[in-house]
Amino acid sequence: MSRAAVSQNFRAIDVIRKKRDGLELSRHEIESLINAYTRGEIPDYQVSAWLMAVVLRGMTRPETAALTDAMLRSGEVLDLSSLPGRKVDKHSTGGVGDKTSLVLAPLAAAAGVTVPMISGRGLGHTGGTLDKLESIPGFNVSLTVAQFRRVLEACGCCMIGQTAEIAPADRKLYALRDVTGTVESPYLICASIMSKKLAEGVDALVLDVKTGSGAFMKKEEDAVFLAELMVETGQRMGKQVVALITDMDQPLGRKIGNALEVIECVEILRGEGPEDLRQLCLELAGWMLHLGGVSSSVEDGKKQGAKLIGSGIALERFRQMVELQGGDPRTVDDTRKLPQARHTEMLASPASGYITAMQCEQIGTACVVLGGGRERKEDSVDPAVGIVLHKKVGDAVSAGEPLATIHYNAESRLASARQLLEQSFEIAAAPPSHKRPLIHRVIGHKGAQPGAKN
Amino acid sequence: MSRAAVSQNFRAIDVIRKKRDGLELSRHEIESLINAYTRGEIPDYQVSAWLMAVVLRGMTRPETAALTDAMLRSGEVLDLSSLPGRKVDKHSTGGVGDKTSLVLAPLAAAAGVTVPMISGRGLGHTGGTLDKLESIPGFNVSLTVAQFRRVLEACGCCMIGQTAEIAPADRKLYALRDVTGTVESPYLICASIMSKKLAEGVDALVLDVKTGSGAFMKKEEDAVFLAELMVETGQRMGKQVVALITDMDQPLGRKIGNALEVIECVEILRGEGPEDLRQLCLELAGWMLHLGGVSSSVEDGKKQGAKLIGSGIALERFRQMVELQGGDPRTVDDTRKLPQARHTEMLASPASGYITAMQCEQIGTACVVLGGGRERKEDSVDPAVGIVLHKKVGDAVSAGEPLATIHYNAESRLASARQLLEQSFEIAAAPPSHKRPLIHRVIGHKGAQPGAKN
Repeated sequence: MSRAAVSQNFRAIDVIRKKRDGLELSRHEIESLINAYTRGEIPDYQVSAWLMAVVLRGMTRPETAALTDAMLRSGEVLDLSSLPGRKVDKHSTGGVGDKTSLVLAPLAAAAGVTVPMISGRGLGHTGGTLDKLESIPGFNVSLTVAQFRRVLEACGCCMIGQTAEIAPADRKLYALRDVTGTVESPYLICASIMSKKLAEGVDALVLDVKTGSGAFMKKEEDAVFLAELMVETGQRMGKQVVALITDMDQPLGRKIGNALEVIECVEILRGEGPEDLRQLCLELAGWMLHLGGVSSSVEDGKKQGAKLIGSGIALERFRQMVELQGGDPRTVDDTRKLPQARHTEMLASPASGYITAMQCEQIGTACVVLGGGRERKEDSVDPAVGIVLHKKVGDAVSAGEPLATIHYNAESRLASARQLLEQSFEIAAAPPSHKRPLIHRVIGHKGAQPGAKN
Repeated sequence: MSRAAVSQNFRAIDVIRKKRDGLELSRHEIESLINAYTRGEIPDYQVSAWLMAVVLRGMTRPETAALTDAMLRSGEVLDLSSLPGRKVDKHSTGGVGDKTSLVLAPLAAAAGVTVPMISGRGLGHTGGTLDKLESIPGFNVSLTVAQFRRVLEACGCCMIGQTAEIAPADRKLYALRDVTGTVESPYLICASIMSKKLAEGVDALVLDVKTGSGAFMKKEEDAVFLAELMVETGQRMGKQVVALITDMDQPLGRKIGNALEVIECVEILRGEGPEDLRQLCLELAGWMLHLGGVSSSVEDGKKQGAKLIGSGIALERFRQMVELQGGDPRTVDDTRKLPQARHTEMLASPASGYITAMQCEQIGTACVVLGGGRERKEDSVDPAVGIVLHKKVGDAVSAGEPLATIHYNAESRLASARQLLEQSFEIAAAPPSHKRPLIHRVIGHKGAQPGAKN
């Protein structure tokens, strides 16, 4: 066989060996592998060996971009260019009480940005946007692409789940990674996130990369590494991408659980709600508006966002989206119409002092134990249960004072959730010496040129 | 689930993750994985991810021993304790013209050592003992364990192929490694070789680990690493193991090809044949006799071996084994009765000077191209074809003098084999400055205590 014939003739084993030996794969090799796998022409056992080699050998930036691109183009790429305004989405790497999407989509839309948002479900200790939305009676996250486009046209934002047409390679690869110990690779995480997000046809993307005890990336350096990778990958693909490294060392806001988090989002959109959640929403909105070309700066974007909340316009946009997606809009006016747990139980502080730390992942797990999340993908979710925190890190507390309220339905689930929660609060005589910032760093804002105003 | 329940409950994903993260697996974890895989309870895609993690993370000595042991015990372990004498085998990592097994089995048996030898077929550029034996008309390498035992009782040696009962885990794992780029790991190679060899029920094992351009381990340091690993693994399992690092920078002996190599072995057993092959056979025999407890030292073993050749006793033992395994014993007396190629072609030296090097792997490939080896496992082998070398490294040569004779059957295969062979000889005006030794090193002889004389 001539050398030219060999190079044309793709063999999975050669790509596996090359990555195993730490060599850089070409765009053609990565594309061939992903395309052949998506078409079912390469067995799982070859791809899982390759994935493990990627986990342990890493990838260069061009390889990461090529992988993202191949996964993106394995399915449909939405063309939203006929819709007005720049298209901007936000993606979070996941945390506990992390509910900003429900605020940001209508808020940015109200400012004139188009927000085509395709989200996921909760898995492990973190919640998922789709589960939260589905706690609104009637809300449909399974729209066709045509319906998605119509809602976007009507109100500027729409929130749905991944369709079969978007990045099928990612769905197939993710299922394999999940059972082969190959989830934990920044390169594979980056390609998975970015392929799905860029298939939405966005012009720009704001990434919220969490770090701390409740995040997948516990260490800030790991969060920064992933953020830089995603930003550069998006920029290589011609998109504006910025990443905020934000704190997940304690839950965001005070409410954890699907319907409870919808309530807290409505509170924020009413100009109420907890300060940390409000601040983070405005910061992320500032970036979305700025990259969306409707504000001259991030600061200006934040101001516009605050005004749209103060005027009730953002809340109205949320109500509109809920209605367009089949949800009961009366829940927005009266959140008591959302599913409510039958029972509540108060968790009292065992001591007086200050909250110095919270085991954030454990609090998320407590919510899963109550039925509010999934241990396995096939589990169903109880929309009503969850936890309301009365104290957060830095707060003073007296013995007997409420730390949290547990909202539960099944008596059988209460004890272990309560135990997890009790162990999650660290109380000491002195307040914590160091206060973690809400926003640790912003990455990629130099490379991310704001779009021209429309 | 309690912690105790979790630790009992084996999950393949946990073992994959642990190896991925560079942690040491317990004997229990390795055993559980191998047993579950052999029983078909774990899918290929999980095991291939684990294999790649092993390739890139390596294994500790206890892990390697545990893997070897689990693979060994996945099938039948022969108990040959009822047979007289110590049981000793020899294993080579494979090379070109590497045919010592056919000499060593009858030679060591003639000295009173029992040699239960289970061998493999050729793959890639190297030949296989079974293919060589099958060039003897009627020779049967597929004996049952009962037949194997009877031949051993009758003549002290028997040479067969792997049975379905011996180390089934290795067969399954090897097939998966072959298609997932996970062959090239000393830990996996060690476990594969040692599990099969120790399942033969031997007391001691002499390893011939090849290094040079015709070996799998081109670099001596890699050969030494593998040899040390196999020696220590065998010793951990209570066996006497010694490894000789021997030269494979040029073919061993002068004949390459199945029937041609049988002829050369008969020559050696007649006290003729090329000096390098004779020397290596005596060296390996010295170790087999010493570990087999029939000689007081390796030197004494070599002397005994030379005497058994000189007296014709070793050749007679070979004839006996051939007959007991269904082969035509007249081929031993008259090797012209072995399959012969229809045509021969002489390769003349293009220049005068000295042979300074030979591309040994390429010479092996030339033999495969002629039909004497396999490119894929399912290929059949032509017993008659091959190459006879007239010059080796260090030899002086005149322009036009024969370098090699090609024995071929198919005209269509000649041209490319000839081209490969032509390119394999390096000829220079001056002789090579450095002569590579035949035996580079001996490993494990301090740990390998010779057995008591019987």
